[in-house]
Amino acid sequence: MPDHAISPTRAQDYPEWYQQVVRAADLAEQSPVRGCMVIKPHGYAVWERMQGILDRMFKETGHQNAYFPLFIPLSYLEKEAQHVEGFAKECAVVTHHRLELGPDGKLIPTGKLEEPLVVRPTSETIIGAMYAKWIQSWRDLPVLINQWANVVRWEMRPRLFLRTSEFLWQEGHTAHATKEEAVEETLRMLDVYATFAERDLAMPVIRGPKTAGERFPGAVDTYSIEALMQDGKALQAGTSHFLGQNFAKAQEIKFASQTGQEEYCWTTSWGVSTRLIGAVIMTHADDDGLVLPPRIAPAQIVILPIHRTDEEREAVLACCRQLAADLAATRFGDEPLRVKIDSRDMRGGDKVWQHVKQGVPLRVEIGPRDLAAGAVSVSRRDRGPKERVSMPLAQFVAEAPTLLAELQAGLFEKARAFRDERSVRLDSQAEVLDFFAETGDKAGRSGFAHVHVADDPAVTALLDPLKVTVRCIPMDGPDEPGTCIVTGKPVSRRSVLARAY
Amino acid sequence: MPDHAISPTRAQDYPEWYQQVVRAADLAEQSPVRGCMVIKPHGYAVWERMQGILDRMFKETGHQNAYFPLFIPLSYLEKEAQHVEGFAKECAVVTHHRLELGPDGKLIPTGKLEEPLVVRPTSETIIGAMYAKWIQSWRDLPVLINQWANVVRWEMRPRLFLRTSEFLWQEGHTAHATKEEAVEETLRMLDVYATFAERDLAMPVIRGPKTAGERFPGAVDTYSIEALMQDGKALQAGTSHFLGQNFAKAQEIKFASQTGQEEYCWTTSWGVSTRLIGAVIMTHADDDGLVLPPRIAPAQIVILPIHRTDEEREAVLACCRQLAADLAATRFGDEPLRVKIDSRDMRGGDKVWQHVKQGVPLRVEIGPRDLAAGAVSVSRRDRGPKERVSMPLAQFVAEAPTLLAELQAGLFEKARAFRDERSVRLDSQAEVLDFFAETGDKAGRSGFAHVHVADDPAVTALLDPLKVTVRCIPMDGPDEPGTCIVTGKPVSRRSVLARAY
Repeated sequence: MPDHAISPTRAQDYPEWYQQVVRAADLAEQSPVRGCMVIKPHGYAVWERMQGILDRMFKETGHQNAYFPLFIPLSYLEKEAQHVEGFAKECAVVTHHRLELGPDGKLIPTGKLEEPLVVRPTSETIIGAMYAKWIQSWRDLPVLINQWANVVRWEMRPRLFLRTSEFLWQEGHTAHATKEEAVEETLRMLDVYATFAERDLAMPVIRGPKTAGERFPGAVDTYSIEALMQDGKALQAGTSHFLGQNFAKAQEIKFASQTGQEEYCWTTSWGVSTRLIGAVIMTHADDDGLVLPPRIAPAQIVILPIHRTDEEREAVLACCRQLAADLAATRFGDEPLRVKIDSRDMRGGDKVWQHVKQGVPLRVEIGPRDLAAGAVSVSRRDRGPKERVSMPLAQFVAEAPTLLAELQAGLFEKARAFRDERSVRLDSQAEVLDFFAETGDKAGRSGFAHVHVADDPAVTALLDPLKVTVRCIPMDGPDEPGTCIVTGKPVSRRSVLARAY
Repeated sequence: MPDHAISPTRAQDYPEWYQQVVRAADLAEQSPVRGCMVIKPHGYAVWERMQGILDRMFKETGHQNAYFPLFIPLSYLEKEAQHVEGFAKECAVVTHHRLELGPDGKLIPTGKLEEPLVVRPTSETIIGAMYAKWIQSWRDLPVLINQWANVVRWEMRPRLFLRTSEFLWQEGHTAHATKEEAVEETLRMLDVYATFAERDLAMPVIRGPKTAGERFPGAVDTYSIEALMQDGKALQAGTSHFLGQNFAKAQEIKFASQTGQEEYCWTTSWGVSTRLIGAVIMTHADDDGLVLPPRIAPAQIVILPIHRTDEEREAVLACCRQLAADLAATRFGDEPLRVKIDSRDMRGGDKVWQHVKQGVPLRVEIGPRDLAAGAVSVSRRDRGPKERVSMPLAQFVAEAPTLLAELQAGLFEKARAFRDERSVRLDSQAEVLDFFAETGDKAGRSGFAHVHVADDPAVTALLDPLKVTVRCIPMDGPDEPGTCIVTGKPVSRRSVLARAY
């Protein structure tokens, strides 16, 4: 065994390390279909955990799920001018609805569609068309709907989870009677995402509005949560859009107000995707593989029986089953603990390393000696892979929820400390140029730069050559007026600049 | 109010009644995209219930979820000869991956793909390609994976839930080392579907293998569960396929056996879809709308506060909230009761009828008089819409799970009695011709005919003009040898014949 399970390490080659973690943790792989990934059972189980938690949060905030068509007629995309500019470029286009088998056994597309269909890159236009039918009066408002779905945005240079032609996501779409309500909804869902990211993914995020150039095509305001990855690059982990009346006007989403006047609705949309799995990897994984925060770990504890003889096997397995039952009867947060026993017939060392690489928060080994002593050997994924602590079995059962809570909190604190370390306040163009200078270090050295900049093309002109963008204008904390380091214009707060995924 | 909430009634015009139930229950509607439906929140909530129960059953039988690409290269479909014949006809074909905005604001497909992609009509071929990579040795087997996904099979004459161009489903795909194991898996999942249909959907089904002409394209054996709808037509509610080594050979899914020999895997696939919602409607709904079996009802109990003054309102609502909390603290089956309070400001009569039409199992009305008497008025969806029973509040809380269990069992018994009434044993061609004769009654009069028939083209020739098919060869009960009514060949059991959706 080399020093680390993952080769190369983060310091050696960060992008390649990422690919190797995805592979070693058995999360996903490229499919034979260009740019499309296969999400393998372990990766999908993490996504199911994320879905479960988010779905509950959406329902608690009054939303219902529904399902809209995969296909969007071209003419729908054409209705909102900015939207079509933003999304027209990278779509999968369905042009035929039949195949015929040629004499050589090859299939030939036939049945040409009168109007081609686009595989949804996002669903504002098709959902808006339905809302225009459903909404008549103020009594029909608000409409608060979410959809779990697959979407397609063609990618020439795919990266698993981060950038794939097809990905899974949720998209919320709401319609309101007033601007105030729609803005409130936009910010409420941004908060839901921020809470989820910090509490469940143990990933600290910065919340705030985007500048004009970074907005969703057709939105009045786009808000995002931004996280810092271990290579110093930002990752946009979720977005919430205030669409104003732009889509309502393009699609005739109107209602009769309480005074009987016909008015356009105010709409919002918001989404997170399987990209979050990439964010979790790049926030917590280390040179031994994935590290999963307990709240989203499919199994929080894996029990590993150790035995040589058949007799030992029976006694050890019986003890493991009892332990699993006792643990499953305790709770972590508001759910039962998730435990599994791995009794596969394979080398113990390989088995342990597999769970290390897959990021299981706690590993518990039980062998004949532990059995005799009424003890278990406990290893935490946030400690060295060979560290083990022996403790009485009953004590472990009693303390497991606390251990997991510690681990969850520890991952968050570690990520926050890293972010703080990589965050600077800069007050001149020279400082910005220096901070984002290429260092030749593949692991990257930069991070979040908090800087006074105006929402102005001159700022973009400075940042573009550095491959840096304004991630958002952080909302937390008080205003801090200053002057733009590029234009000299007065601005009320600092923005966060970073290189980004 | 007319006599019935749904017009026309089942007896007047069954197909139109079906459409009107879907509309009145607010389950789904046609979208502007040809053949694609929008599943509205109430319909989607029923699907989520079905998903939740099935997903647990799949996991309890050792399966894991994963996700595979939406797109399948044409060449993959071409690999299995029968499969391509069966699925090549009705596919959405992606031929381009870019759109460009023309000078007139119209979008033009560009970026022609070298190889067109088909939107998956089913995923045997793309999943098989991955299995061929993943499976090396007998140690890798069995592979037991399920996918929840959308699929597309182009439909020129769509009917909501029953036949739509896009639908939601699950597809299980497994690979095994031996034929026996694969057959066992095929039958295990058929049983899972039958249990789910009968226990949860309260829908009696007949399980059995299909005849050659009705098999899944490429399968060695297809098993189905068949239910009888209220118009006397059969509906195939789920299928489980033993694929033999056909797909394994076409896709090179091989493994090294324990003796070191290279062998082809034995594979299975099995699926149910949103069509089940159509099956539930046509099994239980009546002339007042949807009737939901409690186990799949999003809300099992709706509480309706009745009040005139603000003072009444406060007192009544407080009582409703307490009742809802008490009910939510009790259990039905292995889950908490699902209760909602409908305190919307609308006419009481309209509100009651909405819940009747949406199929909520129990309605509870609480007004000032009930409050004073410490009582509630309870209405069951399986009784007349105006029937109410007053009972002490505490008694209702205590008995609610029993009431729901009665309702669930009653729906099953009613459906089984209907099926028994519409099932006949026929022993000649003349009897078959008579049973399936057109009667001019739109509601239909036929049903299930249990008949000795061979798996032979001569049988198909008799049945085709009647629009009747062999649904399956029922597996339950003992063999009953006889001779085919068409060919005179000896057969070991009767088959079930019916007209079908």
